[in-house]
Amino acid sequence: MADNNNLNPVSIIRKKRDGQPLDEEEIRFLIDRYTDETLPDYQMSAFLMAAYLNGLNEEESAVLTSAMLHSGTILDLSELPGRKVDKHSTGGVGDKLSLILAPIAASREVSVPMISGRGLGHTGGTLDKLESITGFTVDIPLKRFKEILGKHHLVMAGQTREVAPADRRLYALRDVTATVESIPLIASSIMSKKLAEGIDALVLDVKFGSGAFMENIDDALQLAETLVGIGEEFGKKTVAYLTSMEEPLGYAVGNWLEAREAVECLRGEGPEDVMEITHLLAGTMIWMGGKAGSVQKGVEESRRAVADGSAYDKWLDLVSEQGGDAGLLKDPDRYPEADHRFSFDAPQEGYINSLKAYQVGMASLELGAGRKSKESAVDPQAGILLKKKIGDFVKKGETIAVGFTNNNRAIEIARKHLADGCTVGKNKPDPLELITHKVNKSGISKYKT
Amino acid sequence: MADNNNLNPVSIIRKKRDGQPLDEEEIRFLIDRYTDETLPDYQMSAFLMAAYLNGLNEEESAVLTSAMLHSGTILDLSELPGRKVDKHSTGGVGDKLSLILAPIAASREVSVPMISGRGLGHTGGTLDKLESITGFTVDIPLKRFKEILGKHHLVMAGQTREVAPADRRLYALRDVTATVESIPLIASSIMSKKLAEGIDALVLDVKFGSGAFMENIDDALQLAETLVGIGEEFGKKTVAYLTSMEEPLGYAVGNWLEAREAVECLRGEGPEDVMEITHLLAGTMIWMGGKAGSVQKGVEESRRAVADGSAYDKWLDLVSEQGGDAGLLKDPDRYPEADHRFSFDAPQEGYINSLKAYQVGMASLELGAGRKSKESAVDPQAGILLKKKIGDFVKKGETIAVGFTNNNRAIEIARKHLADGCTVGKNKPDPLELITHKVNKSGISKYKT
Repeated sequence: MADNNNLNPVSIIRKKRDGQPLDEEEIRFLIDRYTDETLPDYQMSAFLMAAYLNGLNEEESAVLTSAMLHSGTILDLSELPGRKVDKHSTGGVGDKLSLILAPIAASREVSVPMISGRGLGHTGGTLDKLESITGFTVDIPLKRFKEILGKHHLVMAGQTREVAPADRRLYALRDVTATVESIPLIASSIMSKKLAEGIDALVLDVKFGSGAFMENIDDALQLAETLVGIGEEFGKKTVAYLTSMEEPLGYAVGNWLEAREAVECLRGEGPEDVMEITHLLAGTMIWMGGKAGSVQKGVEESRRAVADGSAYDKWLDLVSEQGGDAGLLKDPDRYPEADHRFSFDAPQEGYINSLKAYQVGMASLELGAGRKSKESAVDPQAGILLKKKIGDFVKKGETIAVGFTNNNRAIEIARKHLADGCTVGKNKPDPLELITHKVNKSGISKYKT
Repeated sequence: MADNNNLNPVSIIRKKRDGQPLDEEEIRFLIDRYTDETLPDYQMSAFLMAAYLNGLNEEESAVLTSAMLHSGTILDLSELPGRKVDKHSTGGVGDKLSLILAPIAASREVSVPMISGRGLGHTGGTLDKLESITGFTVDIPLKRFKEILGKHHLVMAGQTREVAPADRRLYALRDVTATVESIPLIASSIMSKKLAEGIDALVLDVKFGSGAFMENIDDALQLAETLVGIGEEFGKKTVAYLTSMEEPLGYAVGNWLEAREAVECLRGEGPEDVMEITHLLAGTMIWMGGKAGSVQKGVEESRRAVADGSAYDKWLDLVSEQGGDAGLLKDPDRYPEADHRFSFDAPQEGYINSLKAYQVGMASLELGAGRKSKESAVDPQAGILLKKKIGDFVKKGETIAVGFTNNNRAIEIARKHLADGCTVGKNKPDPLELITHKVNKSGISKYKT
């Protein structure tokens, strides 16, 4: 056919449909036109499905990221001294790690300009956890953002509408066209937002397992590689760890319950699984921030920051600075409990063989801790407190989890999710491998503790 | 994930995206919602791309056809006696066969309720050819449609907006989302419109080669099989022939030029290639209409209908009935010629080795005979009259084709298309195989003359 060389949406969609890689100009054309709303949703969704099914190579993913990044404002933090390092998690259940590792790294004078998202579906979001702390505001104008970061080496905020607007529209479109679960589309979405923060380095927690976005470890590895590839392409040091999301992290699932558990972690009373990943990620951030000579030394610094109370102090300061009631964190029993509590008990005696993060997340969502649609509000008090984890022994009728909710009618369905996600057996299961791989620009390596 | 069993667009799109066949309820849900405009274009286009890339099986194609067919009105011609038979071509260049075979079949008392389309791109459309006959109207209300058919065993009309409206909207969407060239989508689009005509049987001319929608013969065979499968699924006798569209059919390309050549064919002065396919298709229609005991006998009837002048008379009657100036057909030199004519000459001596239908069609389009977009009007006078065909010997400078146009500025580009499509070589090429396969419910067979 006699196509001319002028860019046109149909020929670009056709090219991707036919499995050919797009060049930079073509990808920028699509994203620029979509951003200024001259490319209609129905052409973009056809492109997204073609990209979903035929893939995008490394170069295309980087260009897509760049086009989305440049669709909005990019923070310039160069006036602030030192390296700026952030962490991103692909999302899980009970994943309160940001609330622990950010103050740890900041206490070691690594600047952490953290911009987070809200929870959706069975996974929680850092912003919702922060906002469960009475008074805490995540809505921070740029000038104030820099001021807080300069003062505390830390600021925790929500994404403004000016950051990667193309990604925001694309994400909404993917959600309603069954084109969410594509590794290059996920990776470019994440990275366009993270690169807009003006960071120098990024550590990524890529989760796999029942409660993760990627259930399969191979998919998670591929996502990690794509993320690291894009980060390095943009000249940002990027390291990813693959971590298990088979059962929830720690014991608390739900916004305030997790904010409270995060404080326990900062006080040195955190669960083993949470602390293992936290120290690795925080240690990597400390190393990336130039405050330790190696990841291992960074991890030692991280442990010290908890042991000497400096990370805890940093957290109280930051919470106060952002309008939160730090007193609540020191005396969490002051926080009002939800109207209803219920117990989920062992159906029989034995070892807990599974406690599926997905089902616990769904139970917590039903109780009010999560969002079924982007518009719904979350209940800070709702959630689940596990009393047992995989490998623990329970007697018949012993409490495995306690649920909290302000919605009486949600209890039965939450209980059903818990029952679906929990199995108790005669044999003690092998311990879960919590951190399996490290991915950096040199490639994938098996992680050894 | 915990999808419930309720139908929802995202889970249906996801299912097709993941390569699973959709059930009847799901396809009907999509089409019904799209017809009543509660399913947005962006979800339909994601579905179309998933269907394009992952395919639709025979059952899905039949259900899609049925859903589109039932989105609008279906003609009921049962009050008229005899079998109603139509012909459909997948579109070509110089393809004026409908204007010849329809009166042939009707002259043998086979009822032909022919509803045709307009040309788009390099291919012509029957309606445009009919309308080039001064006064001929294709806009015929249902009551009158039946009246004409009852009186002449023939009526030739355009599609009303009530026929398969879902297909009309889907086709427009496919056009702008690079999802046109999908065999099941093409097949269900064609068949939903043809089945709405209330016919008992259908003969299909599926073209392959440079000027056809399907360049590749294997794709054309697959399309033919799908079309026949759908037709038979709906209880309509359906036969398809694969015919070559490597060079234009006959000598005339362009609306009036073709209408005129069709009349020559009815007078027994038609080019061999046109008549070979015409008699086969018309003969098959005569057999399907119960007016001959076999296709072979039908072909003999077809030849007789031309030889005895009854098909020609039938055509003059029909043209008059539909408001056309039948006198023009008897004395075609009365028809005014376009303002400009030019000659395309042989660049060297030798045998014509190629005369690409696509390029001749593009030249004709440029001269004004075709449509670049659905909204443009066609010029009935514009087109190309070939003086030579593949295999003919030409001297250097001898005329290969004469172009006609009212747009002086189009001549150079038309000439360029002709030059691109025409090669002259020392060796005489092998004759083209014009009809290669027959496809019916028993499968594919090689066609032998």
